[in-house]
Amino acid sequence: MPYSERLKKVQSALSAERVDSLLVFAAANLRYLTGFTGSNGLLVIHERAAVFFTDGRYTTQAGQEVTNARVVVPKKGMLEAALKLAGQGGGRVGFEASIGYQTFARLAKQLGARRLRPLSGLVEKLRAVKEDREIAAIRASVDLNSRVFEEILPLVKEGVAEKDLAAEVEYRMRRNGAEKASFDTIVASGARTALPHAQPTERRLRGNEFVLFDLGAILNGYSSDMTRTVFLGRAGKQARRLYQTVLEAQRQARETLRAGVTGAAVDRAARRHISKQGWGRFFSHSTGHGVGLEIHEMPRLAAGDRSPLPAGAVVTIEPGVYLPGFGGVRIEDMVVVRDSGAELLTSTPRELLEL
Amino acid sequence: MPYSERLKKVQSALSAERVDSLLVFAAANLRYLTGFTGSNGLLVIHERAAVFFTDGRYTTQAGQEVTNARVVVPKKGMLEAALKLAGQGGGRVGFEASIGYQTFARLAKQLGARRLRPLSGLVEKLRAVKEDREIAAIRASVDLNSRVFEEILPLVKEGVAEKDLAAEVEYRMRRNGAEKASFDTIVASGARTALPHAQPTERRLRGNEFVLFDLGAILNGYSSDMTRTVFLGRAGKQARRLYQTVLEAQRQARETLRAGVTGAAVDRAARRHISKQGWGRFFSHSTGHGVGLEIHEMPRLAAGDRSPLPAGAVVTIEPGVYLPGFGGVRIEDMVVVRDSGAELLTSTPRELLEL
Repeated sequence: MPYSERLKKVQSALSAERVDSLLVFAAANLRYLTGFTGSNGLLVIHERAAVFFTDGRYTTQAGQEVTNARVVVPKKGMLEAALKLAGQGGGRVGFEASIGYQTFARLAKQLGARRLRPLSGLVEKLRAVKEDREIAAIRASVDLNSRVFEEILPLVKEGVAEKDLAAEVEYRMRRNGAEKASFDTIVASGARTALPHAQPTERRLRGNEFVLFDLGAILNGYSSDMTRTVFLGRAGKQARRLYQTVLEAQRQARETLRAGVTGAAVDRAARRHISKQGWGRFFSHSTGHGVGLEIHEMPRLAAGDRSPLPAGAVVTIEPGVYLPGFGGVRIEDMVVVRDSGAELLTSTPRELLEL
Repeated sequence: MPYSERLKKVQSALSAERVDSLLVFAAANLRYLTGFTGSNGLLVIHERAAVFFTDGRYTTQAGQEVTNARVVVPKKGMLEAALKLAGQGGGRVGFEASIGYQTFARLAKQLGARRLRPLSGLVEKLRAVKEDREIAAIRASVDLNSRVFEEILPLVKEGVAEKDLAAEVEYRMRRNGAEKASFDTIVASGARTALPHAQPTERRLRGNEFVLFDLGAILNGYSSDMTRTVFLGRAGKQARRLYQTVLEAQRQARETLRAGVTGAAVDRAARRHISKQGWGRFFSHSTGHGVGLEIHEMPRLAAGDRSPLPAGAVVTIEPGVYLPGFGGVRIEDMVVVRDSGAELLTSTPRELLEL
């Protein structure tokens, strides 16, 4: 079990963060540090101890899942009990900045705002570097997702509604063993492919247009994420040029990526090629993001990301060009950041598919 | 369009809440007050004006959907721009207590914590009383949900996995026109029915056991919620007694409910009958909750809810008894609170179904 080792890394970081204890609320962080998969828990971490709090619904489950922290199930007032422990000794208490205002207000009331210190990304930074076992879990999720896409392709025909294809995608994820989709599946067709975050509608597919699929599954807690844009019929000159531009931008971004390079540099590589074609302003989002226990996590591949990518990070590479009124193309794969370059996880071909 | 009228009600409540302006962030509240269905918006409400802020992704959509507030799309710094407007005049600024700590920290930095006032449930209290058009929308969602359950029943057989039934449920929701499921569908079988919030597993259904379904759909933004527990085979004496107890408790709760009665009284009615059978401690959750643009909203039907239920509220009635190691039964319908009593929305029969 990797949990003790992960928890120790957090414990040894507390003094550098100038806190005596840390409160962990976020579900993905709890799962990462203890293995707990329920929806309500709270981990109080001191340098030499950790106590896990939950409510009565999870007594049995927490007892089975959490082996590296003492489990406490207060009859009532879980938060109060946890704060009492966290505040012992009178030192500074760190909390995840991602908590809600109301939780913060209760912290401030019980411990005093001056003792509190918001911390951003402490556990998330650890999570960004995946262990081999995590990469294996992500690969299994990516493979499942690719299998689902393959199953869907024969259904992509004129007259089928976007919404029905999205329903088929999520159904087949579950039938292939996924817990569920890691985000609302995007199926967009025709000019709607020019909306980067289109929700599937009743619109029916027609001939001579792009169809864009953005899909991800959760398998054993780990997410996958892939986008493919296919053409229904024979692509014309403009459609082909658009597709090849994004494909080449994606390749250049992939070839730029390796450990030590910044997210900004990878983003720039994709953007440079698209800008050369005169479409720079139609690439309106960033190039990629980390994927793991959450569908969006660290690191990011965007203009502002100037820290070197660590070896072992798992990220998407997903440039896109969206021409209003005409259509858009996005091509998204997942890769592992290695010292030698990008190790591709996604096995689905990325050449233009004409159906 | 009902949006102007709803917004006016909020505007006329500002002075009683002792604020000069109110910041609305919550997606369901934005949809209720303006019709906006995107994922990122912010409404600044003054007594005589309202301005809606969003980002570049939603320029077109907000222009079409939001007709009762001026729409502003700042090039960057949406929150800063909105706060600048909200703070004009130097008065008190109300904000929804449901926002995150980081958003609160930005509010406090720009406006000063002393000018801020957290408000809980201002818009939510309005939303609790449904307009006729909303009740019609909820009824359509409830009917869709019942149709899906009917389609599923022929698939409920020995050897089928819980997970596969859940996949079928959500697939059929989409095929029947729903946007998606309003929560992760619960399918639990055998002793697992004794876990009130069981997630579906690979476990396959066997003969002589309960199978519990808790399902809800979103249609045109409005949620539905229903639980049915069926028996695979012929129910024995204990199973039958368990089922009849919950059924009768549910009936008594339904007959107690009407406008002016408290949520606590309805909860007590269900609990009284179950306790008489000696199973009081196995009814481990509250009796019901409001449903509308969100799957859980006001009012609640629980021991502590001492305010009278308003006419026009839409709530679930869902007592359950969970016997560890044996199994559990929950029966959940949706009703409209009327002066004369509970108007039933759910048409699916609730007598014991032996398959």
